[in-house]
Amino acid sequence: MSTQPATVNEIDLAVIGRLVERCGNDPEAAQTSWTARTRWTGGFRSASYVREHAPIVTDEPKGLAGSDTAPNPVEYVLAALGSCLTVGYTAAAATQGIELRSLEIEVNGNLDLRVFLGLDQGHAGYSRIEVTAHVDSDADEDQLQRLHESVVATSPVGHTLENPIALQARLVKA
Amino acid sequence: MSTQPATVNEIDLAVIGRLVERCGNDPEAAQTSWTARTRWTGGFRSASYVREHAPIVTDEPKGLAGSDTAPNPVEYVLAALGSCLTVGYTAAAATQGIELRSLEIEVNGNLDLRVFLGLDQGHAGYSRIEVTAHVDSDADEDQLQRLHESVVATSPVGHTLENPIALQARLVKA
Repeated sequence: MSTQPATVNEIDLAVIGRLVERCGNDPEAAQTSWTARTRWTGGFRSASYVREHAPIVTDEPKGLAGSDTAPNPVEYVLAALGSCLTVGYTAAAATQGIELRSLEIEVNGNLDLRVFLGLDQGHAGYSRIEVTAHVDSDADEDQLQRLHESVVATSPVGHTLENPIALQARLVKA
Repeated sequence: MSTQPATVNEIDLAVIGRLVERCGNDPEAAQTSWTARTRWTGGFRSASYVREHAPIVTDEPKGLAGSDTAPNPVEYVLAALGSCLTVGYTAAAATQGIELRSLEIEVNGNLDLRVFLGLDQGHAGYSRIEVTAHVDSDADEDQLQRLHESVVATSPVGHTLENPIALQARLVKA
């Protein structure tokens, strides 16, 4: 007789199971809404508030006229992708019974500053982002490769980057 | 005789001027490369390392099987956009001599969890993101509206979201 472990990769499979069941039975339960409130704190520094968590602080490097007290916004995009893929990896591995010993994801992107600086027209952002996932696990290579592909193919941050997103921005004068 | 102020919105105009001049004279100087290294720290928690800065920590809410010790990756995307627009606002305002008294940017997005959970195919990410910029300044409404539009039109994170980005992800088994 084999028993199903309660947690894999420190993830409670019962909570995952209930979440999948609830969202499967009721598509409305899968609709989530997220908010960040960013407050300028002087220079290029800001603090972004999310729920009850400590603020997410950002700045720019000194070469970009910042005071370099924190990562900058484009670095946070890369961290968001790395952390999203990490959640996907550990969740999918857990539900497949794959124990991960370690997982480290490197994310790289190149940016041309000229559009931001008003020196050129076109694309001010990343046009390509490269990810390398370093995984240590007893699972075999094929199993890990399938895990890798499924994680990349279902990542909320990955899809947000890969697809064109409609931004609606309005100004309210205080 | 009028004198040009050295700093506006706590931003050193001489540093901005030198950056624009350098990137204008030498397009190679405008090419920047950014990296984040995300390390899984158990459950859905991770720490992302950027240059020498304190790690960017993430988690998931308890309802999503996390331990809710930090914002989650999709919240970091919204914070990255809010903070990027803040940099754009303060930089563009500074170079136009517009003093900002305060700036707060709210960023909202909705997500359908079913694709991430394997319950549906399609788009796992945000399909639309809404931004509201609250600006307090003596500048007139037309001037602020033009500022707002130019900032949104040149934001590196905004463009990264609005355009389809190529993700290249590879697996390295440890």
